[in-house]
Amino acid sequence: MNIAILGFGTVGYGVYDMASHTENLTVKYVLDLKKHEDITAKSVTDIKEILEDSSVDTVVELIGGENPAYSFIKSALLAGKNVITANKLVISKHYEELTALSKQQNVALRYTAAVGGGIPWLVNLERTLRISRVHRVRGIFNGTTNYILDAMHKDGETFEAALKEAQRLGFAEADPSSDIDGLDTQRKIAISANVAFGVLVNPDEINVSGIRSVSAEAVKDCEEHGYVCKLMAKARNKNGAISVWVEPTFVKKTSSYAAVAQNYNRISYDADHVGRGSFSGFGAGRYPTAYTVVGDCIDVANGVKKAYNSNMRPVHIDNSIVAHRYYVKTTAENDWLKENTESVWRHGVLLKPVSVGKMHEMAAEIQKTDPNIFIAGVY
Amino acid sequence: MNIAILGFGTVGYGVYDMASHTENLTVKYVLDLKKHEDITAKSVTDIKEILEDSSVDTVVELIGGENPAYSFIKSALLAGKNVITANKLVISKHYEELTALSKQQNVALRYTAAVGGGIPWLVNLERTLRISRVHRVRGIFNGTTNYILDAMHKDGETFEAALKEAQRLGFAEADPSSDIDGLDTQRKIAISANVAFGVLVNPDEINVSGIRSVSAEAVKDCEEHGYVCKLMAKARNKNGAISVWVEPTFVKKTSSYAAVAQNYNRISYDADHVGRGSFSGFGAGRYPTAYTVVGDCIDVANGVKKAYNSNMRPVHIDNSIVAHRYYVKTTAENDWLKENTESVWRHGVLLKPVSVGKMHEMAAEIQKTDPNIFIAGVY
Repeated sequence: MNIAILGFGTVGYGVYDMASHTENLTVKYVLDLKKHEDITAKSVTDIKEILEDSSVDTVVELIGGENPAYSFIKSALLAGKNVITANKLVISKHYEELTALSKQQNVALRYTAAVGGGIPWLVNLERTLRISRVHRVRGIFNGTTNYILDAMHKDGETFEAALKEAQRLGFAEADPSSDIDGLDTQRKIAISANVAFGVLVNPDEINVSGIRSVSAEAVKDCEEHGYVCKLMAKARNKNGAISVWVEPTFVKKTSSYAAVAQNYNRISYDADHVGRGSFSGFGAGRYPTAYTVVGDCIDVANGVKKAYNSNMRPVHIDNSIVAHRYYVKTTAENDWLKENTESVWRHGVLLKPVSVGKMHEMAAEIQKTDPNIFIAGVY
Repeated sequence: MNIAILGFGTVGYGVYDMASHTENLTVKYVLDLKKHEDITAKSVTDIKEILEDSSVDTVVELIGGENPAYSFIKSALLAGKNVITANKLVISKHYEELTALSKQQNVALRYTAAVGGGIPWLVNLERTLRISRVHRVRGIFNGTTNYILDAMHKDGETFEAALKEAQRLGFAEADPSSDIDGLDTQRKIAISANVAFGVLVNPDEINVSGIRSVSAEAVKDCEEHGYVCKLMAKARNKNGAISVWVEPTFVKKTSSYAAVAQNYNRISYDADHVGRGSFSGFGAGRYPTAYTVVGDCIDVANGVKKAYNSNMRPVHIDNSIVAHRYYVKTTAENDWLKENTESVWRHGVLLKPVSVGKMHEMAAEIQKTDPNIFIAGVY
């Protein structure tokens, strides 16, 4: 199979390197802003050359960001080419259009690396859906935040010090906003919910709370009560009603999620027949991500000709129907918090079970007076 | 695809039930010792009828045990039929012959459910091997022993009480020997090592130590030092030299293996490019196992025509090249133990790193005077 790689950064080079050593895969083009001389593929700067070459079966998009990645993916599908990408932003935002387009064109649209990096999550989810109905998805989808929280627990570091260390090691970007504010996780759970439940969610409807305001005090409170703090995303299908949210979560010290160390990810489904299945590994990095992209290439070379799930029942996310306890740390005075307090911890309070929707709504309200409010679901 | 199910016990019925509701799968025959009237498939008692029906594409063996399962599998392959089975005993013992036969006949030989029950372990291992070299496999492969050890840790139960409870819940068989003595795990790691490394091991060369002699005192020692006891199997490929062993293992309280609760399993590989990938879920049970068998059926219906790895470099297992610390609890006096003792715990001793081969050899020697000797690898 002849492939063209769009983008020649960290992952792009990794895919070029691995695909060049894989049987039945030929990297025919590499598209980049600048020309590359030292590669066996043809180096081009204009996508047209790739789209007009009918010998190119598959376009691998690894530019990242929304544009021009989105328009390149769309043009490639319209040109009748299979598309493989690791771009969670484009897939989550343009899920409906691109899924429909791949179906219409009868070509593959694969994005295993967009959710879970080196973890074969979406392909296993797809495999399970052949037989079973999945009613719950949850997990730690982001290695940067997991690394930071892990360091805060294990080394007693402050958020700022842990973030700096993550940046030094290359686990966090210079601008870490999309990771620590939970946007990266939001995109991944949006895609996972769409595939798992055969629906079409609006990512903007997902309640998201990140870890920017997590403090050493909150981590101490968490530990004192036998918990470990993780940034988690959850999605549920309860008789067709869909709930999806992202928030810091206190999980029991002995739970499988508590044991997810460093920059590892872990994602689970709950399905009929088989019960809970969990998948863990590196959620990012040049070679883990490239490995997964090349895996998608092999699947397509072997005849896969579709997106993960072309069922797209449009739904509104309803987070009023799921409730659990919350830890809240804030300097603000608030009557609703007082009414719902179950117990007072050293640096914050534990609320009685309240709905996810209500808690995120109240947190946004309180944030106006206390920008550093921190909330975490407690299980 | 037309399938014939051999054996109509717990899993056989589950597969019949699920396959009957799966698109493109038709259960044409069910073979059992007695006739069944209330099923849509033809109930037969003689394998000949199935083998002679050229419309049967695939034979699903779920009888268990060595015979007649082995001869039925062999006859089915010789008759040119794909074979799917959950039979770890037959596959581990007759790996070479059956793998070669499936290759010669150009038919599928799939046994995902034989290792890990509801966990898609072998299919993911196979997927990884398309791209990467796997150099290590390890895991908790047995739900019965995990349930027993988990109960001993969490509820402070004795081995006998935990075993009885596991039997009451259906997690342990009336004769639990093959589980608690590690033979079930031995078969699963033999198959995993063969597939992962493209080798042919002799299962009898695998050092195996089970949990029959684990005591509340040993569990206390384990906990006091920050560990949790698990029955684990490990396999390594170090530049072509293969080590494989099964033994109780003290893992750190915060490790991902420590968090494996109840009758769950967890299996990992370490591979080039992608690093460590881990898979967990139910290792047994009617529907988890049936789910995996039906998954194999769909793969075969979709065109899979082979065993997981037909490379079979014959190797001798060398456990003299891997060493780690051991916890040993015995009433026997032994000079070698004294020489290698690193520290004395309340009820046993912690040895300095010794080779796996030597430890298992010495344990067998000491067992002649103390049948209740208990050993555990310490990490």
